Amino acid sequence: MISRDDCVQLDQNDGLAFLKNEFSLPDGVIYLDGNSLGARPKASLARAHQVIAQEWGVGLIRSWNSAAWFELSTKLGDKLASLIGAAPGEVVVTDSTSINLFKALAAALQIQSSHPETARRKNIVTERSNFPTDIYIAQGLAQWLERGYQVRLVDSAQELEAAIDHDTAVVMLTHVNYRSGYLHDMAGTTAHAHKHGALVIWDLAHSAGALPVALNDCGADFAVGCTYKYLNGGPGSPAFIWVPHRHQTKFTHPLSGWWGHAAPFSMQPEFEPSPDIRRALCGTQPIVSLALVECGLDIFTQTSMAAIREKSLALTDLFIDLVETRCAGHPLELVTPRDHALRGSHISFAHPHGYAVMRALIARGVIGDYREPHIMRFGFTPLYLNYADVWDAVETLTNILDDRAYDQNQQRDTVT
Amino acid sequence: MISRDDCVQLDQNDGLAFLKNEFSLPDGVIYLDGNSLGARPKASLARAHQVIAQEWGVGLIRSWNSAAWFELSTKLGDKLASLIGAAPGEVVVTDSTSINLFKALAAALQIQSSHPETARRKNIVTERSNFPTDIYIAQGLAQWLERGYQVRLVDSAQELEAAIDHDTAVVMLTHVNYRSGYLHDMAGTTAHAHKHGALVIWDLAHSAGALPVALNDCGADFAVGCTYKYLNGGPGSPAFIWVPHRHQTKFTHPLSGWWGHAAPFSMQPEFEPSPDIRRALCGTQPIVSLALVECGLDIFTQTSMAAIREKSLALTDLFIDLVETRCAGHPLELVTPRDHALRGSHISFAHPHGYAVMRALIARGVIGDYREPHIMRFGFTPLYLNYADVWDAVETLTNILDDRAYDQNQQRDTVT
Repeated sequence: MISRDDCVQLDQNDGLAFLKNEFSLPDGVIYLDGNSLGARPKASLARAHQVIAQEWGVGLIRSWNSAAWFELSTKLGDKLASLIGAAPGEVVVTDSTSINLFKALAAALQIQSSHPETARRKNIVTERSNFPTDIYIAQGLAQWLERGYQVRLVDSAQELEAAIDHDTAVVMLTHVNYRSGYLHDMAGTTAHAHKHGALVIWDLAHSAGALPVALNDCGADFAVGCTYKYLNGGPGSPAFIWVPHRHQTKFTHPLSGWWGHAAPFSMQPEFEPSPDIRRALCGTQPIVSLALVECGLDIFTQTSMAAIREKSLALTDLFIDLVETRCAGHPLELVTPRDHALRGSHISFAHPHGYAVMRALIARGVIGDYREPHIMRFGFTPLYLNYADVWDAVETLTNILDDRAYDQNQQRDTVT
Repeated sequence: MISRDDCVQLDQNDGLAFLKNEFSLPDGVIYLDGNSLGARPKASLARAHQVIAQEWGVGLIRSWNSAAWFELSTKLGDKLASLIGAAPGEVVVTDSTSINLFKALAAALQIQSSHPETARRKNIVTERSNFPTDIYIAQGLAQWLERGYQVRLVDSAQELEAAIDHDTAVVMLTHVNYRSGYLHDMAGTTAHAHKHGALVIWDLAHSAGALPVALNDCGADFAVGCTYKYLNGGPGSPAFIWVPHRHQTKFTHPLSGWWGHAAPFSMQPEFEPSPDIRRALCGTQPIVSLALVECGLDIFTQTSMAAIREKSLALTDLFIDLVETRCAGHPLELVTPRDHALRGSHISFAHPHGYAVMRALIARGVIGDYREPHIMRFGFTPLYLNYADVWDAVETLTNILDDRAYDQNQQRDTVT
């Protein structure tokens, strides 16, 4: 069995180890929840000081131009584009994932309904296990449009394939499942959907910054995602939306605010969408939170998504191996697929007392999180985790389980 | 004529003068654009440091509970409520004004369409001179619903009254016009609309924090507004939405994201709206920008909206008086109503070379802004402006106009 010394040796040979120095992490913590809220880039504090003290405090209203606040959503979008296989001018960082999904879904339905061949299609196909807000947004839009749209929830990847048919207007999937860590085959599913005439929207919440994504190569239609998880943008930092050049002139949605106008300052009483990606914008953006997204993105310029993926798989393989070896005999069940091709960068184990065990882990400084039912979720972010961290986390888990050092009757009164 | 010494004397007797110390303003600047981006509260820098270094950096994911990030939208909403005549539990700070208006308008149309007496009403009445994003959002929603809704644009306050009739579903107005500074009679217009069976949505972008607002006393139906102008929340800080208790169970909208769910962490695949004001939320909020809103709101606890209004009217009276006296002979036209009952806290003057004159003013440290066509806009924020500032600003304007110290051919290539 691999020892802690072996892990230390792996760390010494780790070509990405130097990147941990870009982050500020508290002492005594092994942070396995970067899939929920990424750690803080050290640069964020100075950047916030600059935006608040200088750009806001001294520049005041002039900073919309002089500090290029107006360009921030597109500038950050261009920086993010290369991480997800998108081209410059195809991404903006703005609003929340839920709201961006609303725009993308509205646009996709509009494209389908305006073609004679696809106009009668009424199904929006997604997974029952998708992150709930994605399903809620689809339900909300379908219901409000009152045009007979149905959200069809499927229960498995096999069922998904069969559910995509000539009644499908849009397939809407999260690339990596938030609970199980299951990774969809973006190229295969997109091709399958296109073969049946459906458009595909990908939610990259758990894949942007976690593994290589090739939106344009896969021929995907639209994508949205989150900057506060693997991209380390800060708590609740604005989300992103991708609209490929080939769809931009057809990209319309009802959130037609002034930031999406072709000439926002001409103050005309008729909406005319911007000819470019700006038409995915709506209203004024929270500049301080938005600016911090750049600190996270800039760290990625020092490495590649291929190198990150390689280390991510090594860390997660190690974690699975150590848990299954050292915690054998405890009722732990690996929920995440073992196959590299089928998983993202977090590992979920079910345990009958998963909530209580996770609370005990957090109390000892190993921070993962819990998702109903019974699932302990452990995120592995290669930018600031090393192999010894994995060993130490499993050591703590082993001790808690062996000693039954958790309160089995713990109420789920708060969610971490 | 009033002298600069008289102004200094007024400042010495000003009961609000001490509040200027709460703000950080650059040397050599007279800031008359707080109606576009409020000045920086000194407290904001320490608060940002706390949120970024401690809550994010050390607390990490735990801060959603331990730093009460989940409660921030409602906590700030309660603080804001007292400034706009709302009750606790009726306001949340979230998203942008455009998106909140979309929610409010969707909810209002849904309420009207579900009553047999009002279901056939198809008009959304607003002003052609309303801030464009409000009109665009109404156009977007009306068009996408495909139920025959029309946005009816009226050209004057007189026409507004006549336009509200038994075909009107919703009246949607900005309380203080962004360009002219015209202040609507909220009580009178709301009563008039209700008499005709219409619901009324107020956009408080230029009134929240600028003058007393009495939403509940006026019987208004919904309101939205901005925190980065008179409330000094920071560039693009999240907006707010007000839903009175009497309408909350009927408040539904298509942006049904997980933050608006009755049990966001139960991860159920069916949307069930929160029973309270949280149903106006959608997705995860930008916490750093959101947290800074509190620094602005807390300053208001040291005074009252009545005292702010009294000083605002004194400052604006003084400005009008000085401009009309000292710049007599120049082609300046007062666009804002002279009557206190008909104006907010900014003053607009038209000038044939308004853009160039404003550029010259800004170059000399008197920062107002420009709005098409020909309008120079001057905002007066009693929390950090004094009477001598007004005198000095007019002195600068007088010098520029007398000396023709502006480039009449200046291109409008950027907008400040």
